[in-house]
Amino acid sequence: MERTQVLIVGAGAAGIGVALALQRLGLDLRVLERNVIGSSFRRWPAETRFITPSFTANAFGLTDLNALTPETSPAYSLGQEHPGGAAYARYLRALARHYELSVEERTAVEHVRTFSEGFRVETTRGSFEARFLIWATGEFQFPRQDLQGARLALPYARVKSWAALEGETYTVIGGYESGLDAAYHLVRLGKRVQLLDPSAPWKRSTGEPSQDVSPYTLERLREALETGRLELRQERATRITRANGQFQVYHSNGVLQSPTPPILATGFEGGFEPVRRLFEWKGPAPLLHEASDESTRTPGLFLVGPKVQHRDTAFCFIYKFRARFPVVAEAIGRRLGVDTAPLEVYRKRGMWADDLADCCTSRCTC
Amino acid sequence: MERTQVLIVGAGAAGIGVALALQRLGLDLRVLERNVIGSSFRRWPAETRFITPSFTANAFGLTDLNALTPETSPAYSLGQEHPGGAAYARYLRALARHYELSVEERTAVEHVRTFSEGFRVETTRGSFEARFLIWATGEFQFPRQDLQGARLALPYARVKSWAALEGETYTVIGGYESGLDAAYHLVRLGKRVQLLDPSAPWKRSTGEPSQDVSPYTLERLREALETGRLELRQERATRITRANGQFQVYHSNGVLQSPTPPILATGFEGGFEPVRRLFEWKGPAPLLHEASDESTRTPGLFLVGPKVQHRDTAFCFIYKFRARFPVVAEAIGRRLGVDTAPLEVYRKRGMWADDLADCCTSRCTC
Repeated sequence: MERTQVLIVGAGAAGIGVALALQRLGLDLRVLERNVIGSSFRRWPAETRFITPSFTANAFGLTDLNALTPETSPAYSLGQEHPGGAAYARYLRALARHYELSVEERTAVEHVRTFSEGFRVETTRGSFEARFLIWATGEFQFPRQDLQGARLALPYARVKSWAALEGETYTVIGGYESGLDAAYHLVRLGKRVQLLDPSAPWKRSTGEPSQDVSPYTLERLREALETGRLELRQERATRITRANGQFQVYHSNGVLQSPTPPILATGFEGGFEPVRRLFEWKGPAPLLHEASDESTRTPGLFLVGPKVQHRDTAFCFIYKFRARFPVVAEAIGRRLGVDTAPLEVYRKRGMWADDLADCCTSRCTC
Repeated sequence: MERTQVLIVGAGAAGIGVALALQRLGLDLRVLERNVIGSSFRRWPAETRFITPSFTANAFGLTDLNALTPETSPAYSLGQEHPGGAAYARYLRALARHYELSVEERTAVEHVRTFSEGFRVETTRGSFEARFLIWATGEFQFPRQDLQGARLALPYARVKSWAALEGETYTVIGGYESGLDAAYHLVRLGKRVQLLDPSAPWKRSTGEPSQDVSPYTLERLREALETGRLELRQERATRITRANGQFQVYHSNGVLQSPTPPILATGFEGGFEPVRRLFEWKGPAPLLHEASDESTRTPGLFLVGPKVQHRDTAFCFIYKFRARFPVVAEAIGRRLGVDTAPLEVYRKRGMWADDLADCCTSRCTC
């Protein structure tokens, strides 16, 4: 049995990032990771890139959109504007090493229970206890599969490399970032692609990055459309079947047939199982106190990462959810009676979103 | 004779941007532009793109690196991450129209003189007077040509489109952003390129964007090098000659010969002529008060744009020099006795650099 002040579950961007904020306060913490640091990123398709561009403008308070601390920048350490998953995992590993974080790899959480002095977490490598628990598991490994016949499809997250796929024609289901990324890479490889999405995200222009397609992808989309091999269809896929050696995707207006399994790119769910009952839920979103991202049901349990949601804002990019690291760290630090001044640098560097009325919805005028 | 409180010379990124900051204070101002709004951007080679990526993260205080106001974003209005010059000129024009800026196009400044009530500016379209004068001319139209034989070369800024150039082999002089951009586009078109730069910027990794090659260009450089048609040489070009129907570029270690004129990409000088005597100079940099970017020689005369320099920091990107717009606007507003609170939004949105000791030099740890 090991006891620390804080346990963090997940050594991806959210877990490593919040751990480094807490470490500034001198807290005793441990990160538990069921696989290895950054393993979700390592499972990205080889060609997938960050859609948020990295740039080394930290010193002007415009911190690299993919950075996890105010003093680091993937643009700097990787020399790339749009890192791939494997490269970003190297950045995570470099952070953990440089700051000497305590990370237990290959330690999967099996049960979590609360008791008078906090949380007891049972893992495949023994028990851990802590007063505070931060849930920071990734979502990439949990594709949403609620479409009928979804098991016949190839989920985006299961693709190792688009170049390894055979066949000349593809159906892609889902037209937000993952679906458009799949379509772009397949078209680049000379294949024909039909993409279905009832909400046609490629047509939206709200100014809010969680709604709109990113500028990076808009540029790639124009390139893909110019080949004449991509068709974007505003239709809802309703069902997938397999017959006569072909796959059928039924949609609101007919059926598409292809010899290759359809690519399923309809989003991800969080890996909440061991703590699901410790949150209240509003649909797929766990309810959190706005001032601290703490569970409304279980004091001492915090959520960080892309599943954090407040009002109309989904903190679904790194530059968004990292802005809650100091919020969580400050809440824990105060309760432990430590000086939280070392967190101030997050505010100066555009990494602290605590005014939810003002932040965090863009509506640009030009 | 027209009189306003403030005259701004130049309707590029610097002039339009500072005008919009001043307009928030309700000041009476006018922008004089010798050509049309954004004309320097319109003269970029067709293929040239911004090296700083645009992204719509304004609401998180991480304002689009190429935006000129806290509420706008070229990523949003242009739908591009790396706008070209013509697209960016459209953004400038949209700003001027949306905010109803008073811009006099085709009005070239010929003489500037000071008098008891400020400045009198003689132009090709009459005289203008103002208490404050802001110099915001671009630099793109003034390539540096101090290399011997430079007049034989083709300056980067004179290229309309790389696709329009004939010939199969090129020498590029200068290896920072413009030189690498030239090399990238020529190589993409199937040409062979030798590039000379004694300081080998492509090898630097300081974390400071005004020193290092951008992540965007590093990615493009790797692509160009993979073709085998680009050679980067750490040599100083010393002289250009023309003989036997060929161009010769002499360098520290020999001579390169090509049938095409060498591309000169060794930087730009500011268009300071009408106000040169109104500044003190330290080499190529005009001396400015740190607290206001006001000329140390002429009270009431301010400089904005990429030629602003303090200590070791060159404000040579839009995201850098725009952070001095509110500094200049506040200095003028205070002297006119107006409330400068409307500028506060610049601080919240990462667009105000007034602490030169803290800003503005990056040194990333990872």
